[in-house]
Amino acid sequence: MEKTLTQIVKEKPWVGWALFLGTMVAVFLLGLFGASIMERRCESRLINRMITPIPEGDPRDIAWKDNFPRQFETYTATADTTFASKHGGSATIDYLERDPRLVILWAGYAFSRDYNQGRGHYHAVEDVRKTLRTDVPQPGTCWTCKSTDVPRVMKERGIAAFYRTPWAELGPEIVNNIGCMDCHDPETASLRITRPALGEALSRRGEDIGKVSFQELRSLTCAQCHVEYYFKGKADAYLAFPWDSGFTAERMEAYYDAIGHTDFVHALSRAPMLKAQHPDYELFRTGIHAQRGVSCADCHMVYIDQGGVKFTDHKIRSPLDDISSSCMVCHRQSEETLRENVYERQDKIDALKRVAEDALVHAHIEAKTAWEAGAGEEEMKPVLTLIRHAQWRWDWVAAANSVGFHSPVEAARVLATSIEKAQEARLSLARILAAHGVRGPVPVPDISTKAKAQALVGLDMPALRMKKNLFLARVIPTWDSLAAARYRKTERISP
Amino acid sequence: MEKTLTQIVKEKPWVGWALFLGTMVAVFLLGLFGASIMERRCESRLINRMITPIPEGDPRDIAWKDNFPRQFETYTATADTTFASKHGGSATIDYLERDPRLVILWAGYAFSRDYNQGRGHYHAVEDVRKTLRTDVPQPGTCWTCKSTDVPRVMKERGIAAFYRTPWAELGPEIVNNIGCMDCHDPETASLRITRPALGEALSRRGEDIGKVSFQELRSLTCAQCHVEYYFKGKADAYLAFPWDSGFTAERMEAYYDAIGHTDFVHALSRAPMLKAQHPDYELFRTGIHAQRGVSCADCHMVYIDQGGVKFTDHKIRSPLDDISSSCMVCHRQSEETLRENVYERQDKIDALKRVAEDALVHAHIEAKTAWEAGAGEEEMKPVLTLIRHAQWRWDWVAAANSVGFHSPVEAARVLATSIEKAQEARLSLARILAAHGVRGPVPVPDISTKAKAQALVGLDMPALRMKKNLFLARVIPTWDSLAAARYRKTERISP
Repeated sequence: MEKTLTQIVKEKPWVGWALFLGTMVAVFLLGLFGASIMERRCESRLINRMITPIPEGDPRDIAWKDNFPRQFETYTATADTTFASKHGGSATIDYLERDPRLVILWAGYAFSRDYNQGRGHYHAVEDVRKTLRTDVPQPGTCWTCKSTDVPRVMKERGIAAFYRTPWAELGPEIVNNIGCMDCHDPETASLRITRPALGEALSRRGEDIGKVSFQELRSLTCAQCHVEYYFKGKADAYLAFPWDSGFTAERMEAYYDAIGHTDFVHALSRAPMLKAQHPDYELFRTGIHAQRGVSCADCHMVYIDQGGVKFTDHKIRSPLDDISSSCMVCHRQSEETLRENVYERQDKIDALKRVAEDALVHAHIEAKTAWEAGAGEEEMKPVLTLIRHAQWRWDWVAAANSVGFHSPVEAARVLATSIEKAQEARLSLARILAAHGVRGPVPVPDISTKAKAQALVGLDMPALRMKKNLFLARVIPTWDSLAAARYRKTERISP
Repeated sequence: MEKTLTQIVKEKPWVGWALFLGTMVAVFLLGLFGASIMERRCESRLINRMITPIPEGDPRDIAWKDNFPRQFETYTATADTTFASKHGGSATIDYLERDPRLVILWAGYAFSRDYNQGRGHYHAVEDVRKTLRTDVPQPGTCWTCKSTDVPRVMKERGIAAFYRTPWAELGPEIVNNIGCMDCHDPETASLRITRPALGEALSRRGEDIGKVSFQELRSLTCAQCHVEYYFKGKADAYLAFPWDSGFTAERMEAYYDAIGHTDFVHALSRAPMLKAQHPDYELFRTGIHAQRGVSCADCHMVYIDQGGVKFTDHKIRSPLDDISSSCMVCHRQSEETLRENVYERQDKIDALKRVAEDALVHAHIEAKTAWEAGAGEEEMKPVLTLIRHAQWRWDWVAAANSVGFHSPVEAARVLATSIEKAQEARLSLARILAAHGVRGPVPVPDISTKAKAQALVGLDMPALRMKKNLFLARVIPTWDSLAAARYRKTERISP
């Protein structure tokens, strides 16, 4: 027969003491665990609190390091710009070399000189200094999205004056890359909008940037820059978004037509062209992710759990680079399946993009031939409008990041209308050419390399490169030494 | 101080007896509930068991009624063909009246006479008798997808002989509409493939129809008919699917080109045309639903719970007609949101479809003008191929049900290439026309109504209608009385 515990303890009292002590040790350990949990909770609450105050006027990311070591560390990691993407992930891609047709499409515009895959936020200032596109005199507006120095200089000089000031004059002021201060309030670390164009554009639509939800702000913070924009007024160069009547390619096209805006006159076709910037936010708005309430940050800045602390990964990048933390938060398929789903859509958009490019190259060259054959302004006008619209629609998809994935059906639809209009232009050109005695197809010259295409559009690349090298060798050191002499000098942080 | 139950029972023994009796009553009721659950389970197991044997040779749905009252009742409800759809849900839509450009696109083919929204399975025989498209002598192949009589007659005569037999000769044999026997084994009620073309097509691809999963069968059963097909050999008219090298528009186009298949020579452009049937399954295969393992039946034949019995709704219809039972099984959005998501995609595809149609109408008319201006076979040949490919790709999307929703990105992509090719044809035509002295745009005649368009393509509609009415008045009664004299006469079931 077995004994009860009470009987055992009655017979051997030391068993009772052992049990009592054992229990005390266990309870003490539990207490320690509890304390550890409380400490972690406290720590995670502290995570978004300031330890070291950050002055509003300090544009340096380093000023945020003590308060937000995790965000700082991950943001610094954006210096590494290799990431997963089938259609051009590497930051060293020379788009013009990869597809010399682009040189023809932008003949007469700085993009035909130099157009590389952007290396991202962490290299913004260096890249904008180095590109051959900034070789020409440009307004200060070109700095708007490049640096944490911008809000400060805008405050000092006024917004309109900032835009009007020559780009080169602001050079010694704009030295820090895109960083913390651009999206966060230094006092509370909350998201904030620092660039006026977004609020102004929404305000013209009757919307109040101050009243948007936190989730909307997680997209709109990006939409300060990742949008289509233009410089309003030749002298003013006032940064504005063409959103007054809507966000689609057609609505923006109608807006530009209505105000008679033209980015450049095409060097071959003489068409009054529009250059799309990167209407990422606008294309994204038409897609299912936006419709389901997903924000930019949800996919491009995922949540990370580190030592019990949840924070936003500030290594902004393609969701494909970390599918398990981005897509798989909602989608229950394997990484491989999801990657294939994205690539399949991008392949289809990429193929349509190339069809549109081909038609546009032909159209520009046929228009040039028509002018040479004696075509008149009047007969060419509708053709040039078709070319303008066709290239705008192509560019609206092509210039946006994601190779159409932000909204694949809309991207395909807009490219289809681009193809239709480019071909319609060519159809009219065939009739005009025939009327001026030119029959049969107009041959496209050899544009198999970037160099050949640039020679065709009359670019003196050695001269442009030499000028840029002189600028980099002589002007940039002055800018940097002027900046270094001040409080706000840039302190490069090696990743 | 309160008393324990033991004390109460000791004092008042009747309390004990009351408790004992009460417990017995409760346990008895629980037993009843249990029995009811067992009965329901038994019933649900019986639901797919035969009560009345169904002879293999009996094509009538009524033979299945006793065994499958729920499936029978819901299938009978397909007689009602009104359903939710923005782009043509009503079964009375005259497509040619709604869009007379279709008359031009099919000039020289029976579709230009008459093309209405299909009223569905339950009206198949009546509709195929009545349409002006069956006014011409046709092979028995045209009956293949229309009736439960088909497997029986195929068994009696042999497959090849069935196809070869004139349509009119088989008339008295084919009288029951599409029904139970077409998709189900009468002995086990399991899904089965009754039409040989599907298995033959898969077999040529090295796939075995006998080895597919149940979930695949829930799509392949539909794919017996809801596919692209053609009649192989003028005399044989052997039903075949052009799947040998793939399921996409381009792969099928290459297949048709390789075997030199042409459905009709266009009456205006003289292009060797292809007519797409309804490549629903093929388009669906390229979409996300198929990629995620969803079958046709999952959306078009949802599960219903009725009196504890779960069964498949045989009122086959648009998922939009019952979003809560179809889409919302997986998607967690509101009905309104999901409906809008579908409509948005369909609107975009519909708009592209119209762009393609417009370009194609112009191409056919411009080609006709080119012939009239003296263009030669040699210079027209590449143009006619472009027209053939452009219209095939448009039709591949347009003829498929769902207005592209089965795969919106693919639908948009294929339409974009259709537009490109149609416009490319017009571009060549502009050059050919110019070479033969025709300058400027070729005007499109007035095709604002179906009647005007039909007159333009040389159709004598009163004569066609009279002939059809004579056929309906004289031939059909004979067919029906011959059928009525036999065991397999049709018994119309009023819904």
